[in-house]
Amino acid sequence: MKINEIGEFGLIGRIAERFAPLVPAGWEGIGDDCAVIPWDEGQSMLITTDLLVEGVHFLRDRISARELGAKSLAVNLSDVAAMGGRAVGTFLSLGLPAEGVGVEWCDAFFEGYRSFGVPLLGGDTTASTTGIIVNITVLGRAENSRVKRRNTARPGDRIAVTGPLGESAAGLRVLLEGLPSTPDTDELIRHHHRPRPHLKEGEWLGRERGVHAMMDVSDGVASDLLHILRGSAVGATVDLSRIPVSPLLQRTAEQYDGWEARRLALTGGEDYVLLLTVAPEEADDLERRFEAQFGRPLHWIGTCTAGAPEIVYRDEAAGTTVENTTYRGFNHF
Amino acid sequence: MKINEIGEFGLIGRIAERFAPLVPAGWEGIGDDCAVIPWDEGQSMLITTDLLVEGVHFLRDRISARELGAKSLAVNLSDVAAMGGRAVGTFLSLGLPAEGVGVEWCDAFFEGYRSFGVPLLGGDTTASTTGIIVNITVLGRAENSRVKRRNTARPGDRIAVTGPLGESAAGLRVLLEGLPSTPDTDELIRHHHRPRPHLKEGEWLGRERGVHAMMDVSDGVASDLLHILRGSAVGATVDLSRIPVSPLLQRTAEQYDGWEARRLALTGGEDYVLLLTVAPEEADDLERRFEAQFGRPLHWIGTCTAGAPEIVYRDEAAGTTVENTTYRGFNHF
Repeated sequence: MKINEIGEFGLIGRIAERFAPLVPAGWEGIGDDCAVIPWDEGQSMLITTDLLVEGVHFLRDRISARELGAKSLAVNLSDVAAMGGRAVGTFLSLGLPAEGVGVEWCDAFFEGYRSFGVPLLGGDTTASTTGIIVNITVLGRAENSRVKRRNTARPGDRIAVTGPLGESAAGLRVLLEGLPSTPDTDELIRHHHRPRPHLKEGEWLGRERGVHAMMDVSDGVASDLLHILRGSAVGATVDLSRIPVSPLLQRTAEQYDGWEARRLALTGGEDYVLLLTVAPEEADDLERRFEAQFGRPLHWIGTCTAGAPEIVYRDEAAGTTVENTTYRGFNHF
Repeated sequence: MKINEIGEFGLIGRIAERFAPLVPAGWEGIGDDCAVIPWDEGQSMLITTDLLVEGVHFLRDRISARELGAKSLAVNLSDVAAMGGRAVGTFLSLGLPAEGVGVEWCDAFFEGYRSFGVPLLGGDTTASTTGIIVNITVLGRAENSRVKRRNTARPGDRIAVTGPLGESAAGLRVLLEGLPSTPDTDELIRHHHRPRPHLKEGEWLGRERGVHAMMDVSDGVASDLLHILRGSAVGATVDLSRIPVSPLLQRTAEQYDGWEARRLALTGGEDYVLLLTVAPEEADDLERRFEAQFGRPLHWIGTCTAGAPEIVYRDEAAGTTVENTTYRGFNHF
């Protein structure tokens, strides 16, 4: 049977089931942004790992070495922030082809990697017969009481994201379609190559008791929110008229045929903003304090329900419900 | 500048220097088999990561999925054992090509992976445009007082390995030269594809105060011992007549032109036995107890000296000294 018949999450489910009996009591393994393991008194370690492969996750002739170093680490740091933690150490494996990648390339890669100020504590370097391979494992830390998970949303929770959606996916589309360089398209590519993970936001939201569930948006809200819904056994209504489509994406989509800004915003992925559910009685206060802290709004996009773990898309501005098969997130196989 | 001009260890040195200022006090980063980080009261966590790439580290049509799953983990578990620890959790990234690797292949891979009984706590799966990519990070645990390092050998220490050398490298050579299948060549290939890391031996040796320095043999003693010598600022004399060349390798080398058994044993790598230095006054007692415990001997191969961090090869049986440039370990670039 081909892997794309069961899909990425089918494969992960098979694996998780097989290893569950080996996981020590009190440890949390496969199923969230990070594994959660007891550290010292009252503290948890959060561990996550991500593999980036040339030709699948990036194009060597489009992304600079410095950008690749920073982005590779950014996507992992985002997973730690998504659970309310702070990264304290990293481990890097680097596979390098014999041609086209020299010492200067490596120096620039590590300059980008170092830009987050998190120590590199170990790794592996090897030749690659093909393209560049980057695998990063991040070790994070959080007080036990501040760890936010995917499986703790409750019916009635309001659903928010911490920033606009779709810019990174739009940047990738600009690259793939070879669109002409303009200030807008250049800026979208920058969003794709230099994502800014919401690290401080994650740590801050971790301290908030009103935040019930949290994760980062890597595959697109349409796909990622399902993890929270399935993990928490709740449903959700998402209001399409409240999706914070990036204005930059909106303007660009109006220029090009076949671009649907809202679809890219919901399904494009690689936004690395945070997706969270909030106790309804805390929502207004949290919104106010978040904006005071970060100078940017929390964007409310929907509500958790007691229904099946599916997303019902409504357009409240138009008063209509939309087929929920319209929006699907990224599948890695 | 090409990376092979500075080499794997030149590259790692550049990286380590750049990140050293970020490493917290009391944490040990790049430079040993694992990073060492304080865990809870009196305990350290040991973390190591390894990247295996199809066509570089293995040939898909020669190694079975089950063997690859087991071997990929084995080489990482070996790093934890080499510091006196026990693996408690693992993280796996798997890059899979669209063709030729299906769900059955994955099931067999995970059967092999699971054979060590260590939990898989997280990971990443992705498509690969090229071959299979396996990255594993292992989290281990050890009492602080039992952690063995590379930089703690002392002049006068006796140097030992915990098993015969060269079988894995000979198995690879059988594969690459396409030698005919015989009971001996088949057995050598098995050693290459199913290495048995010395996990219990490592944990046991971790408890021994007489063991000063320890690491695992992955690139060959000729290369690996240099890490201990440079880390500890000691020299070494290695007695070629005491190198435990596998009898299986010895017999095979006698059959084929150009095979030098002793060279393969010293430089071939992937043995995943342990290399250690022992206080001379403890050596006899340790040897006796090791053999009683494991039913196999410790093999003494040389002595640490107060000289420069280089290996002087002697053939004590013949009473001669050998050029030390004769034996070089594996370089990954």
